[in-house]
Formats: sequence, C-alpha cells, structure tokens
Amino acid sequence: MRRSNLYIKTSNNVPAGEVAKNAQLLIRAGFIYKVMAGVYAYTTAGLRVIENIKQIVREEMNAVGGQELLMSSLQKKETWEHTGRWSDDVVDIWFKSKLKDDTEVGFGWSHEEPIIEMLQNYLHSYKDLPIYVYQFQNKLRNETRAKSGLMRGREFLMKDMYSCAINEEAHNKFYQETTDAYMRVFHRLGIGDDTYITFASGGAFTKFSHEFQTICEAGEDEIYLNREKHVALNAEIMSDESLKELGVIRDELELVKTAEVGNIFNFGTQKSEEMNFKFTNKEGKDQYVHLGSYGIGISRLMGVLVEKFSDDKGIVWPEQTAPWKVYLVSIGLDESVKQADDLYEELKSKNVEVLYDDRDARPGQKFTDAELMGMPYRLTVSDRLRAENKYELTVRATGEQMLLTHDELLAKLVSL
Amino acid sequence: MRRSNLYIKTSNNVPAGEVAKNAQLLIRAGFIYKVMAGVYAYTTAGLRVIENIKQIVREEMNAVGGQELLMSSLQKKETWEHTGRWSDDVVDIWFKSKLKDDTEVGFGWSHEEPIIEMLQNYLHSYKDLPIYVYQFQNKLRNETRAKSGLMRGREFLMKDMYSCAINEEAHNKFYQETTDAYMRVFHRLGIGDDTYITFASGGAFTKFSHEFQTICEAGEDEIYLNREKHVALNAEIMSDESLKELGVIRDELELVKTAEVGNIFNFGTQKSEEMNFKFTNKEGKDQYVHLGSYGIGISRLMGVLVEKFSDDKGIVWPEQTAPWKVYLVSIGLDESVKQADDLYEELKSKNVEVLYDDRDARPGQKFTDAELMGMPYRLTVSDRLRAENKYELTVRATGEQMLLTHDELLAKLVSL
Repeated sequence: MRRSNLYIKTSNNVPAGEVAKNAQLLIRAGFIYKVMAGVYAYTTAGLRVIENIKQIVREEMNAVGGQELLMSSLQKKETWEHTGRWSDDVVDIWFKSKLKDDTEVGFGWSHEEPIIEMLQNYLHSYKDLPIYVYQFQNKLRNETRAKSGLMRGREFLMKDMYSCAINEEAHNKFYQETTDAYMRVFHRLGIGDDTYITFASGGAFTKFSHEFQTICEAGEDEIYLNREKHVALNAEIMSDESLKELGVIRDELELVKTAEVGNIFNFGTQKSEEMNFKFTNKEGKDQYVHLGSYGIGISRLMGVLVEKFSDDKGIVWPEQTAPWKVYLVSIGLDESVKQADDLYEELKSKNVEVLYDDRDARPGQKFTDAELMGMPYRLTVSDRLRAENKYELTVRATGEQMLLTHDELLAKLVSL
Repeated sequence: MRRSNLYIKTSNNVPAGEVAKNAQLLIRAGFIYKVMAGVYAYTTAGLRVIENIKQIVREEMNAVGGQELLMSSLQKKETWEHTGRWSDDVVDIWFKSKLKDDTEVGFGWSHEEPIIEMLQNYLHSYKDLPIYVYQFQNKLRNETRAKSGLMRGREFLMKDMYSCAINEEAHNKFYQETTDAYMRVFHRLGIGDDTYITFASGGAFTKFSHEFQTICEAGEDEIYLNREKHVALNAEIMSDESLKELGVIRDELELVKTAEVGNIFNFGTQKSEEMNFKFTNKEGKDQYVHLGSYGIGISRLMGVLVEKFSDDKGIVWPEQTAPWKVYLVSIGLDESVKQADDLYEELKSKNVEVLYDDRDARPGQKFTDAELMGMPYRLTVSDRLRAENKYELTVRATGEQMLLTHDELLAKLVSL
C-alpha cells in the first residue's frame, strides 16, 4: 500500500487520560483510535494486525478440530437465568437495554450460556460427541475502570472455544491438546518463551485450573515463577500443600508481573446440570455433557505485543503479526522515486507486503515514522544508493543494516 | 469437511413464530440458529456463506480504493449530539445503556457520525483527499417488529463505506464508480439481472438518491419498473415531472416487490457542517468535506439469496456463495465407502470444497439433506456406480445428472 493513499497519520499527541504505553504507541502510530475509555476503533493498519493474530489462532483451533461459528451480541435474559448469571449482583459488568415491548436484553460479555443453549439444539446422542466450537466475537463489559489500553477494554475481541465431551477422560484429552495448541499460538506470536501455564485455583471439578500468563510489566496479574523448572502458580493457591504437589519450594519462586493472554476452564458437568444439557449414552440413558471453555484475548494480545516489543522510538512488530513486512522509503531525485515505484510494484507482484512511504516528505520524517510504526524491515532507495546499485535494508528489532543488490534483496524478502 | 464431524443437524422444525421463508429454510438446513426475534447466530455452515459474501464485497470495495477498518459497537452520546441524532425522537431504534458512573452510551445502529469523528483526526488538507473507508460491522437496531428473518434484523451485518471528497465533482466520480462496483457485487452474487438502480427522493443536495432493489416476493419494498428501458423508481418520486425526466410514462410501469440490498447517499456538506469537518484547500482556506455513504446488507443478502434461490426441497446456493461446492454422498458397501473416503481426500488436496456425508444413514436421508442444504453439486458414490467405474454428479439447480469417469469428474470439479 502507498502511504500517500493510506488515510492514517502518525502523531506525537495522545488523548488526555491515556496512560497505557500500548494505547499511547498504537494511537501515535495510527493503528487504533480512541472512541472512549476502554473502547477503540481499529484503523486499516491496526485491523491488519488483528487479522494476523486471528489467523494464527484460527489455524491452531482448526488443527485441534475446532469449528468456527458466530454468535450474536444481543442475548436473552432467560438464557442466563438458568445459571443465575443474569443478576447484576452475580455478574456486575452487564450492559443491558430493553426492546420496545420492555423485554430486557443483554449485550454479550460472555457467550458460555448462549452457546450451550444453541448446542442443545444439535446435540442429542453420544454419537454427536465430541464437539468443539469457537468464535471471534466482540465482548462488551461494563468495567468500572479502563486504564490499560487494549489490555482491559469495555469492548474487546476474544476467541472463545467450547468443548462438549462424553466424560472427564475425553474432556481431559482435549484440554491437554488445547493447552498444546495455545502454546503453539503464543510461540508463533513471538511470546512463547515468556508465557507460562500457570496453576490457579480450580472449581468444583478440578483441584487446579490453568491460566496462560505472559511476563509483562504492564500486566494486571502477578505470578510466582520458577524459571528453571518452568513452573508458575498464582497467589490463590500459594499453600504448602500446593507447592509440594508442584514440586517447588517457596524460596525458589520469583514474583513477576504478567498479563493473562489465555485461560482454560473445566466446567465438569456443573453448567450442564444447571442448563439441563444432556445426551443419550450408549446404554440409552441420559447423561450430562462434560463442558470446557477456552479463551484467548485477541485485542489484548495486540496490546501485550506492543508492551513487550517496543522501544523509545516506537513499536517493533514480530514478523508474524506485522501489518506489512517492509516499510519502503524513497529519498531523493525523480530517478530514485522511479526506482522505488518499480521496486514497490515488483515486490507486490511477488506477494511481499509493503507499505511504501511515497509521500513528499523529509527523509527524517519517513525514518521516524518507519520506526514508530515498527515494520520488521525498512527498505531505503536513495540517490547515493542508486549510484552504487544497492538497496539498504534495516532490521527494526536490531538496527542491523545490510547493503544488498537487487537480486540479494529479492532473495531475502521473498523468502520471508 | 466430514458431516460426521460437523455438529449441525437438519430438521423439519422451525421455532414458533418464524414466518419468513429465508429463516425457516436456513434454520432447517442448519445454517442459522434463532436467538430471539430478529437475532440469529451463524453456525459453521452459515458463517461460510457470510464470509463468501463478505469476500466478494471486500474485493470490489478494495478495487475502487476502499480501505477496510473496524469501528466499535459502543458509541458516545456527544458524537451524535452534533447532528441531533442522539435523541430517541429523531432516531427511534437506539439501544442505549449506561456506564457505572451513569454516562450514557449507545450501541451502533449506524457508524456515520463516529466514522466522521474519527476521520477528522487524520484529515486536514486537500492533499489528504479523497478518502474511502469501509467496514463489516454488526448493527444493533431496536426494531419494533422483526418478522422477516435475515431481511430485517435487530442485529445484522452490514458493509458500510464512507467517502470524503474535496467537492461535488470529485464526489460524483466516486459515487458513479461505487454504483458500478455495487452492480458487479450483485452480478457476482447471482442477482445482478434482478437488481435495479432505483431512483428515490434526494436530500438537500441532490434531486434523486439511489437504491439497489432486488426483485423478491418477500421484500419489504415496492418499485415501479420499466424492464425494457431498465428504469426503476419508487413511489416517493412518482410525479409527472420525475417521469418525464427519467423518460418513462406511467402506463409502462410495473409494480414489483423488492428487497433493498444496497443504498448510496450523497450527504453533500450538510453533515460536515453539522460536525465541523473541514479541510484546508489549495488556497489555504477552510472548506467543508463533501461526504457520501454506501451500504450493503451482508446478512440481508444471505436472506435474499435464499428467498430467490430455493424450491420446495430446500436451498439452491449460487456457486459463489455456497458454503461448499460439492455434497459428497457415499452409499453401500465398505468398498464404496473406501472409494468415497479416497475421493474426499483427493478433492480436498485439489482445493475443491466438499461436505462429505459420511454418516451411517439411509441414502434417502443423505439425498434429502443434500437438497435441503443446497450445495451446487451432489456427488454420489455407490456400489452400482462403482461397478460401472462411474461417479454421479447432480446439479442442484437443474436436477441434471451426469455419469462421469474419475478423470472427467476431476476435470469438471477442479475447474469450478
């Protein structure tokens, strides 16, 4: 894409009251626009990052047998009354409104109960199981405070998956497969080494539940970590008994700030019992479905990436999520501009994703924008370089500069 | 995909009170699930149709220079007060709620004002123009009645595009380009010949506005049509003067029922004036931006397609929007099942989209489902056919049956 066509502008200004680094940088670099506290719009550049993250998650969810669907934002009161969660005393983040005939409706802060209600429609027999469904869906949550940018929004994008199994054994098998799939997602996003499966308190059905916590200074959580043994737990379960069970001792644990990027829940049959969600087993008897729920915060991940991959000059996108791989800068005479135009067309034809800064602007401004917007590679075409028959390729993450011939450049970029 | 893995089931039942044919068929065929009146969830099969429609629209919007973005559903009161449209007396379909501190918020029934507010942030000079942005976004509208299935929902998916131009001439150029792009969309969806650019009453800035109306018995609109001259107008502008201007006479006009599948608006500078949306022109003076708005109802189109392309046996998806191209049925002995398994894998490897009915079910049930779900081709593998070294390919739309060898079959399906 040509920068002269792209409507977004970088800026040094951030809205008053925006204190989170991720939101500040994403707003300044033109990736998001602040609608109100905790509510952001995604510009054309920002949406490309979101779609890249979604695609990685989608591939890994499909790989474990997940089937994508899309629920509605509007929800019925009755759906949530089965579990007592319509009540504002139980769930204090509901947004609610009314139809013209005064029927109360809610806006989806979660889709657990609605998805179960839908699946009841299709699932009757043990032959129908297992079922794994997921969606990418806006969640609307009436948070009291929203100061963390994309890390905690009033409106945010989540991947939520649900599993229906015949029994605990089948559930546990998928739970483990999904745990592995989640770690593959985080590795592909470039935060795998800093993401820990963290033991947290279980519910009625399991001693422990699990969170996926990524080390992040701006995170809202804290975990106790033994890096060597790769064991992490949260404060809830910090007891002598738990420590013994996990094979660590208190003195070896380091307290680190983290952001929760994913979570997995074993509902057992509790929710099925509340919602009367049954199937007929092989013996012809009714049995409650064993349920699991698996979340990944898509927009939160965009925030976490910026918190972790940025420096004083701006964002440093990991390659898998970068909106474009290359930021092409042309400097100098008409001949250099012509050369950059040709190179842009050539790279496009070879499916290299390029943002081409073809603006009539000072080189300094283009370089500053390249660093703020954070594409993995900056590619420079200039009069001086043209005289040497070379192109300059700069790696955003390391600052490494390479002088390459046309063939070397293509070999490098096309293989990315 | 294997039918035995897909969680959806076909059914003869529709929810009480669901009177629209499109919703009845889509629910029975397992494409949508009714959450409440006017609110539907999309199953894995239904979402594939939605994504196919979106992709066609996306390609055509990108081709005229549109840039995709994503706004929020939560909206601020202040944004809409500039134009007086926060008031329930002016806009009677708002869903509203409140933050914890009693701040009122709205849920996006439209994104016109919010998008303009966002673009004000990036657009300052004539050099920044033109700008064309669009999104695919849920709209939430508190409709009093919702009886038309996907044709009029309380929650529905729209493509909305907005254009910013320096003057009326530039606006009109894009308006015409978009009109052409819209007709390409409708032709690609298979409803081009039945879709008419219909003259409707203009606003402050134009004598006429334009709607895209598709002939459809279940539609909520009516237009006056001269098929021969390909001229259509709605009742609002039925005057001797208008008829003369459009070159038709009253007696030649046929009244037909239609569904509005797209609309385009010329706002002129009215909204810019209300929202103080200005740019600096070449002479260094402030000038109001010339605005346009362009909608296509994505989920409504899914409903229109079903209304138009269905028979007493079920849905007949046009190829471009079908969730899968082929419905593969295996009948008979283990050897036939093995043959179908191999064929399924082979077609998948050649990127032919196949829904494989591998269920342990009667042939009649598989054939009935194939017709109800409406994939363009049914492909049958059976003991009898295997003995003849043939495959049976049945065209859903015409009922035409072909007996093909393996090579003929592949040549036919891979080229689709």
